[in-house]
Formats: sequence, C-alpha cells, structure tokens
Amino acid sequence: MGAPSGEVIVTGGLGFIGSHLVDAYLEAGHRVTIIDSSTGAVIDGKDYDRDPRCTVIRQRVEDYLAAGGDFAGADRVIHAASYVGPASILSRAGRLGHDIIGSTAPVIDACIGAGTPMCLFSSAEVYGRSGLLDEKDDIVVPTHYNTRIEYAIAKTLAEAMVTNSRQHGLRGIVIRPFNVAGARQSRAGGFVMPTFVQQALAGKPITVFAGGEQVRAFIAASDLTRFLIEHMDAALDSDDTVINVGNPANAITIMGLAHQVKKLLGSASPIVGVDGRSVHGPHYAEAESFHKIPALRAATSLGWQPRIALDELILSTAAYYRAREDRRAVNAPL
Amino acid sequence: MGAPSGEVIVTGGLGFIGSHLVDAYLEAGHRVTIIDSSTGAVIDGKDYDRDPRCTVIRQRVEDYLAAGGDFAGADRVIHAASYVGPASILSRAGRLGHDIIGSTAPVIDACIGAGTPMCLFSSAEVYGRSGLLDEKDDIVVPTHYNTRIEYAIAKTLAEAMVTNSRQHGLRGIVIRPFNVAGARQSRAGGFVMPTFVQQALAGKPITVFAGGEQVRAFIAASDLTRFLIEHMDAALDSDDTVINVGNPANAITIMGLAHQVKKLLGSASPIVGVDGRSVHGPHYAEAESFHKIPALRAATSLGWQPRIALDELILSTAAYYRAREDRRAVNAPL
Repeated sequence: MGAPSGEVIVTGGLGFIGSHLVDAYLEAGHRVTIIDSSTGAVIDGKDYDRDPRCTVIRQRVEDYLAAGGDFAGADRVIHAASYVGPASILSRAGRLGHDIIGSTAPVIDACIGAGTPMCLFSSAEVYGRSGLLDEKDDIVVPTHYNTRIEYAIAKTLAEAMVTNSRQHGLRGIVIRPFNVAGARQSRAGGFVMPTFVQQALAGKPITVFAGGEQVRAFIAASDLTRFLIEHMDAALDSDDTVINVGNPANAITIMGLAHQVKKLLGSASPIVGVDGRSVHGPHYAEAESFHKIPALRAATSLGWQPRIALDELILSTAAYYRAREDRRAVNAPL
Repeated sequence: MGAPSGEVIVTGGLGFIGSHLVDAYLEAGHRVTIIDSSTGAVIDGKDYDRDPRCTVIRQRVEDYLAAGGDFAGADRVIHAASYVGPASILSRAGRLGHDIIGSTAPVIDACIGAGTPMCLFSSAEVYGRSGLLDEKDDIVVPTHYNTRIEYAIAKTLAEAMVTNSRQHGLRGIVIRPFNVAGARQSRAGGFVMPTFVQQALAGKPITVFAGGEQVRAFIAASDLTRFLIEHMDAALDSDDTVINVGNPANAITIMGLAHQVKKLLGSASPIVGVDGRSVHGPHYAEAESFHKIPALRAATSLGWQPRIALDELILSTAAYYRAREDRRAVNAPL
C-alpha cells in the first residue's frame, strides 16, 4: 500500500488546530491547500509557502468561494476556520453568528458541489452546561445571551446544517474538540494553557479566573489530528455525525493546572486569583460548564484513543514558548 | 396628541404575520414599507401597491440591503421575513440556518447604521421541549438534528445576535410568537388551524397528526400586532429583550381543536388520525414540545393581555376561507 497522495483542504490552516492538521496531513503524505484569512493565524505560514506540497491562499474561505473558487479534485475539506477563544470573540458580539454561519454554509455547498467529504470543527462549548458530556446529550442554551453563548449557538447551528445537508448528498462529520492544547496555541484568544505556561516561564503571576475549581480535560493537538488522519473515512461511514474528541484522563481543576505548570517548569511565579473581566474587559464571560469532560463514545467505537498525558502537554507547550514569542499576543501584558 | 405618522418597515410584509402587522400599522396612522421576496406571501400585495401610504419592495431584504438600500428615516423595522411552517422548511434542509442568519445579520447592521429600533420575529419552536415556557428558561436543543431543529437553533442564534448587538447600539427586541392563527394563514406551511378549517369547510377528513393529544395555545394575529403597536416602545426600554406573545387561555389539544372546528362550522367531516409524513414527506417532523404554552411575564408586565378567544379565531379563519382560496395551497390536496 502506497502513501496517500490526495489533496486535503484545511480552512484556518494557519491557526492553532489548523496548522497541526496541516502538519499531520503532510506527514501522512498528502498535498495540502490552506485557505486562511490570517485573522486567527498563530504562524506567518512562510514555511508552508516554501513547501512544494503546500499551497497557501490568504483569504477568507467564503470570499475564495464567492470569487469562483471551488474544491474540485480535493480528497477532503477540513473546515477549521473560525473565530475562537473566549477573549478573541468579544469584539464580534452580535456578528459572530453570521461570521460562523456565513463561512460554513458556502463550504457545505462547495463540498456538495465537488462531491468532497467534509469535516466541520465545532466546539465543546455547545453543551452549555456541566458534566460528562455525550454526543447524544441534549444541548442546553442559557438565555442570558452573551458573546460566548452566541458562539456556542452558532456552532450548534453549523452542526445541524452539516447533519441535515446529508439529505443533499454531503458526506460530512463534525468534531467537538474539548480543550485542545499544545505548541502554537496563543494566549491571545484567552486560552488558559499558553497563558499559564508563558506566565510561569516569565516568572509573572499565574492568573487563575473564577476560583479555579472548574474542571477541564486537555487533549494534545496531535491526538486530535490522529483521529482525523486514521479514522475520518470510518467516521464518514458510521452513524455518528458528531464526534467528541478529548482526553478525560487529563481532567484537572484550573487551580490544579496552575500548580502543575508551576511545578513542572520550576517556576517561582505566585498563583493569584483574578477576575477574567479585569483582564479581558467587562464583556468577558466564563464558560457555562463548571465540569467539561468528554464522554468518548463515537471516537473510541472507531478504535481511537487519546495518548498524550497532561505533563507532556505542559512541557511541549513550554518548549515551544521558550524558543519564541507568542506571535498573536506580543502586545498583550502577561 | 396627533396620530403617529412615522414610517415602519415590515420585512415579510406579504406573509401571514407580516401582512397583519402592515394592516395594524396602517390602521394606527403609519406609513409602511414592505420588503418581501414573495417566497412566503399569502397575498399578492396589489391592495398595498394601490395604497398611497404603502411602498412594496419585492425583493429579499438581504438583497435590498446588499444593493445599497438602507433604513434611513424609518421609525422602526419589524423583521418578520423568514421561512416558516413545519412543511415549508423541509426543502431548505441544511440551508435554513444560513437563510435565517444571512437575512437577520444585515438587518441588524442596517438598523444600527440608521439608528432605527428593530423587532425580530423568533419562534416558540426555540424552546425545544414541553411545558409552560418562560422567556428566562433554558433552551433545550435535541441533537437528533432535523430541519425543524435547524430552524429552532437558527431562531435562537438570531435572538442572541439581536441581544448582543445592543453592545453596538442596537435598540432591539425579539418576539417569540406561540401558534399565531387567523385570516390569511396558509395550510401550505403545514399549519394546523387553516388545514382543519379548510378541511371542515370542504367536508373533507380533518387530519390529526401524532395522536392529537399534544397541546397548543392559539393566539389571534390581532392580539400579537396590538402588542407591537401599543407596547414596542416600552419593551425597547425594558430589561426584557425576548418577549413571549401567546394566549395560554386558548390552550387545547389538537384533537380537541379538530372537534371544536367541526362543531363550530357544522361540518360533517370525519376526524382521522394520520402520520404527518404521509402528507408532508419522510423528512417531516413533529414539534419537540408536547405541551407548548407561553408563560406571559414580559408582555403582561408591560400591560398587554391577549383578548381573542379560540372560537372567534376559528370563525374568523373560516370566514376568510369561505370567501376565497388558500393562495399558497391551491395545488396541495386537502
């Protein structure tokens, strides 16, 4: 059996999850086309520009398609482009819904048009409540709408659109990632792992929001990409359209994470409680979920398991930021 | 105090709810501009064309705005344009989310741009479960996505967008109407009241779906329009962005409605149980709510109460369809 050689299109391929996907597909022998507006880019993409196996289109995918672009000939489309991060989304209040739907709808139509299978990146934020969360659980939407809830509803709607588009011939799946972490993730979006790691490396206070007793389960980007590389075809043929991808074994309180980062990195940083609104502004909101832990049913039924433990994830994030700046966060105080 | 004279823009003004709104605003002394694609029109609009107080723009509002149209000078915008009805939406599976968001987003932006207050029509479908439903209740989204659920999520997202757009200066409210009924409502969308009334008038079987024990509370279009005419300004100044409008006193089972229609109209029609999918196709789905009854909190706190009882609603619907055909349903078998 030779190496796969088909072309994979990754929207948002200069972003955190997107760039890990690009690397994984290149490693697996594919050609990759990146379509990325650079809005959420964590890298400049020049390495990909130089790589003969890569094409980088610096444009919003909806603009690319509106200008006559298509997905003809591609093996699959991974739609990872999105505003993301509890701080990054705030400036898009009231517009985020259209940002997400206005990008997803034309991608669905173009995938139907080209007969190309599609994977949509949704978010564990959709659940909107605490618990061990299964793909078949109802989704609970609180009606004290804020931008974070608008984000969650928009992702839910995008999930429904992919699912219902199967009626028009779309072969599509949806990934709900739970707290992905690793190299390149920027603290600019309001993500906790790169924030704590960079604070610890700089000897600055590690800032714990909302008391720190909230529980999150962190998964390595490489575990996530391995699901798509090895199991996407089987997922497309399965009855599950929506698939949780996370690592419940890495569940930890945010306060526990602060201590673990400090210990592993040998940091002298104090750990301090802070109101997230004092950092990200008055519209910042915590997640609706106090415990956010994936029930792994669909993904494990396909033979996938996460592998990377939390300590390794902290150390690889630290290795990345020892060697370079956080490109998106250079002007934001630690 | 003179009569009001400001201009009101009604999107979907040739539709069922929209045309009642147009009539109510004309009656109250306003000028009205209708923007309607004719997709869901229940009237041809020629009476409005002839009325010097009316302007009819036969175009989708998103196309009107994209072509440079705006809302400058308008007193308020009522965004009632939408695909609607459990049967009408089926052909839009997978696209309905973008239909609704792609229309609502530019209306919000144009209202912000013109400084014009806005009212969005949402739907009681958003609740996605049974009960006596309050505006502050969580919304429950089942994850067995179908087109009806896609509709509900899209309306929820539109609600969040209006609410969050207050950050950008939008003065906006959202109406969640519960089973509005009355003259002009077409059975083409899959609505029960005009279906039962037309079947009873024609002596054809009255077709009850899903056993008929599900409970709905019907409100007269005139009660709904009176809320906006008399209370919209107060609502814009209140803390409630989302407002249930319905009539819990008219709650009745669907089987009970069938018997009441038959009795009031003196019809010899038999009442028969039918699977909705045999009428509307395999993708037709019943509502998620078994009991769907509005808790009236926000609206009654502003001094509004519904007035029209169920019998009057049945009789006025019958009077309308004794005198004319159901324009949208002429080709659909009773």
